[in-house]
Amino acid sequence: MLTLRSASACLKKRVRYLATMTRYFPDEPSQPTVKTSIPGPKSKEIMSQLNQYQDTRSIFFVADYAKSKGNYIADADGNVLLDVFAQIASIPLGYNHPTFLELSQEPQFQTAIANRPALGVSPNIDWVDSVKSAFISVAPKGMSNVFTVMCGSCANENAFKTAFMYKAAKKRGQADFSVQELESCMKNQAPGSPEDMVILSFQQAFHGRLLGSLSTTASKAIHKIDIPAFNWPKAPFPKLKYPLDEHKDYNRRVEEEALEVADAIMSEGKVAGVIIEPVQSEGGDNHASPEFFRQLQALCKKHDALFIVDEVQTGVGATGTFWAHEAWNLPTPPDIVTFSKKFQAAGFYMHSRLRPDQPYRLYNTWMGDPVRAMQAARIVQEIKNKNLLDNVKEVGQYLQDHLKKIPKVENVRGQGSFIAFDMDNRDSFLTEMRQRGVNMGGCGEKTVRLRPMLTFQRHHADILLDTMRKTIGC
Amino acid sequence: MLTLRSASACLKKRVRYLATMTRYFPDEPSQPTVKTSIPGPKSKEIMSQLNQYQDTRSIFFVADYAKSKGNYIADADGNVLLDVFAQIASIPLGYNHPTFLELSQEPQFQTAIANRPALGVSPNIDWVDSVKSAFISVAPKGMSNVFTVMCGSCANENAFKTAFMYKAAKKRGQADFSVQELESCMKNQAPGSPEDMVILSFQQAFHGRLLGSLSTTASKAIHKIDIPAFNWPKAPFPKLKYPLDEHKDYNRRVEEEALEVADAIMSEGKVAGVIIEPVQSEGGDNHASPEFFRQLQALCKKHDALFIVDEVQTGVGATGTFWAHEAWNLPTPPDIVTFSKKFQAAGFYMHSRLRPDQPYRLYNTWMGDPVRAMQAARIVQEIKNKNLLDNVKEVGQYLQDHLKKIPKVENVRGQGSFIAFDMDNRDSFLTEMRQRGVNMGGCGEKTVRLRPMLTFQRHHADILLDTMRKTIGC
Repeated sequence: MLTLRSASACLKKRVRYLATMTRYFPDEPSQPTVKTSIPGPKSKEIMSQLNQYQDTRSIFFVADYAKSKGNYIADADGNVLLDVFAQIASIPLGYNHPTFLELSQEPQFQTAIANRPALGVSPNIDWVDSVKSAFISVAPKGMSNVFTVMCGSCANENAFKTAFMYKAAKKRGQADFSVQELESCMKNQAPGSPEDMVILSFQQAFHGRLLGSLSTTASKAIHKIDIPAFNWPKAPFPKLKYPLDEHKDYNRRVEEEALEVADAIMSEGKVAGVIIEPVQSEGGDNHASPEFFRQLQALCKKHDALFIVDEVQTGVGATGTFWAHEAWNLPTPPDIVTFSKKFQAAGFYMHSRLRPDQPYRLYNTWMGDPVRAMQAARIVQEIKNKNLLDNVKEVGQYLQDHLKKIPKVENVRGQGSFIAFDMDNRDSFLTEMRQRGVNMGGCGEKTVRLRPMLTFQRHHADILLDTMRKTIGC
Repeated sequence: MLTLRSASACLKKRVRYLATMTRYFPDEPSQPTVKTSIPGPKSKEIMSQLNQYQDTRSIFFVADYAKSKGNYIADADGNVLLDVFAQIASIPLGYNHPTFLELSQEPQFQTAIANRPALGVSPNIDWVDSVKSAFISVAPKGMSNVFTVMCGSCANENAFKTAFMYKAAKKRGQADFSVQELESCMKNQAPGSPEDMVILSFQQAFHGRLLGSLSTTASKAIHKIDIPAFNWPKAPFPKLKYPLDEHKDYNRRVEEEALEVADAIMSEGKVAGVIIEPVQSEGGDNHASPEFFRQLQALCKKHDALFIVDEVQTGVGATGTFWAHEAWNLPTPPDIVTFSKKFQAAGFYMHSRLRPDQPYRLYNTWMGDPVRAMQAARIVQEIKNKNLLDNVKEVGQYLQDHLKKIPKVENVRGQGSFIAFDMDNRDSFLTEMRQRGVNMGGCGEKTVRLRPMLTFQRHHADILLDTMRKTIGC
């Protein structure tokens, strides 16, 4: 007998199915078009001009964004590629999305673009609305404060500053800054510039490339070599084996071992904050279990260190929840969550208790950008209106299921459409995929990472999968 | 007898005079209007809402940018102030400048705002044009490369990275990275993360608030206390006495003493780069002579350290030359010049020889923003078309001449309209000036810094001066 509950479940399923049939971009190309080698002659000509002024060695091709649409990126030579890299995971909705195009016609937006404020001095009258609709409406549970900056590295470094100030304030208790602290910090010396506080991060982590954030990054030597670093510690990040259900004991053990090392480091009493990515992205798309993260948070509480979740790459929907850490079912919220990339705006959430006692300690000229905050508000609205998180979950499951059936594709892993796999000849595979019309990126030693936009659907996935099968030759 | 030369000089003078008569904004208010206390009730109401989410203690008032025009900023309560602070020296041309409003209607601009690229992966087809028209067209002489980022602190930190990589490459010679270097840097340890390289900066300097740049900053303890720092050295910045021509010997001596300390520090062989502001701004608007900077550059050459000029606040015209360091008549260009603020776009210039040998060492997700680069190109064009540098010089001279005649105004100093003076009751003076319709800012202990836009003219200066006289009571 059809109960009301099962009818409702059935209906929801049907709605979700229909949603996958909706094409978010009715005028998107139906498939890639490749006319030249990539990069083609026009890309190369522009790159050669640009190379007089800037290093172009990392460039894949020169893009023609006016001709790009949805999940498809056009290049200077008229090639049109399905984009599963999305500007290093930083395009949320697709190229030339109507909501962004509409927004750029709005008077409030045009005022914002022509008048860039110092938000800590004279914020615009509608800044508080942007803060609410862009950031607070999707604030991780229990986090009421947001500090905005200009990029992901800046977000992480200001999070570190917050952790140091909070820990120092706790140590200091009711006392004022001492004269010795005030004077020594001006010489970069202890006790004002403390040597007994560090940020703990993990091996293979990527948290940015500025001098503080780079000290917590450990993904590739070429990012770090020759640059002075804070002598901050690293714990191992568990290296899970796949498929997960065939390696339960092993995986539990490596997670426990990693936590033991973290515990030992934190026992030394110097750790003001622990920063971790929900999925180590640049470092090879390394995952860990929700239980691992819950235990890490417990260690932070035990040792009075802030638990900082770096959601610069994982945030804003790609893992199937707005924030990846939602999947961990933490007993209490993280202390700090940082964001950038897909949100277009960068910054971090924190509890109000972490706001420094004195003003001007978390501060800079622009403190974010109202233009990008207005875009962030549109992204939030679009994710909600179009149920994009459901789409991400549905297409992500579909992709994972089918990727696992392709030979030579190893260690398929993912959350939502934030998916990766390993492949022996990764670099030539990526080059050939691009030449066949699919733009993809790598990470770690031999990992391919899929970073589609939130509007990437099953029909896009089929093109990706077919092109992979052709490239691999199966 | 009127020679051709003197006729031409006369004509030029006349043109300059007429330029001062042109009002750059015909529809700008003719004077401030103050209706409420500042911040007024509406500002306070918005600040109280915002304070739930963000620290509002540094906010002067909430601005209504749609109603702001040229040199006048409107607030939420309908007050309209002459703005001589300009968002901490970061508004180049004035509020709602027609060139920015026009630009935001252009298809290329709208494409850029809706499609934010990872410039190191897939730059837009017109990026090279922006690079040329915004940055290269005003590149300091002899500097052909530009690296763009998102803010001034990021610009300085990437400049430091460049200095470290350059110095390390020179030490290493033809050799590859050693295995020991590659492995140790992943643990933040020497030799890969070198302990024998530092950046030298100056007392009272301000170069940013991220963890590397903050180690070179020494303006106020509240910026630095409780934050770990690299143990990098500081040399004294000369504290000149005013008027300059009455203290020539003293001033020469303090400059020589500062250079001696810098020389001694650099003799230890660890300094990879020396960073200095043409005018120490946050630290109190401290100037030094062109000769001081020439000798500092010579010391950098002697000790093989890069000479890094931080033009984040001084750059883009405010001192009467596009770059403040142009006034020094250096025998050869600086090695690196950093910029942000008034340019809307942030980054640094360098010589092509400083480009790292390997890709991905100076790199991040966005590597700047085409939207802000397009605005920077408009700023350059407007400065040229309207001869704004002449305006800055003319109004700057006028301001300095008249400020010197106002009682209680001490140590008037400046270049172009980048002017400062000292005043004993500085903070209450600033509050009263704001209440009388002139928005100004302070720096250092008791300094008032004028940071007008490049379109600030003699009739604005008269309002500023009159209001000062009334406030001081003379």
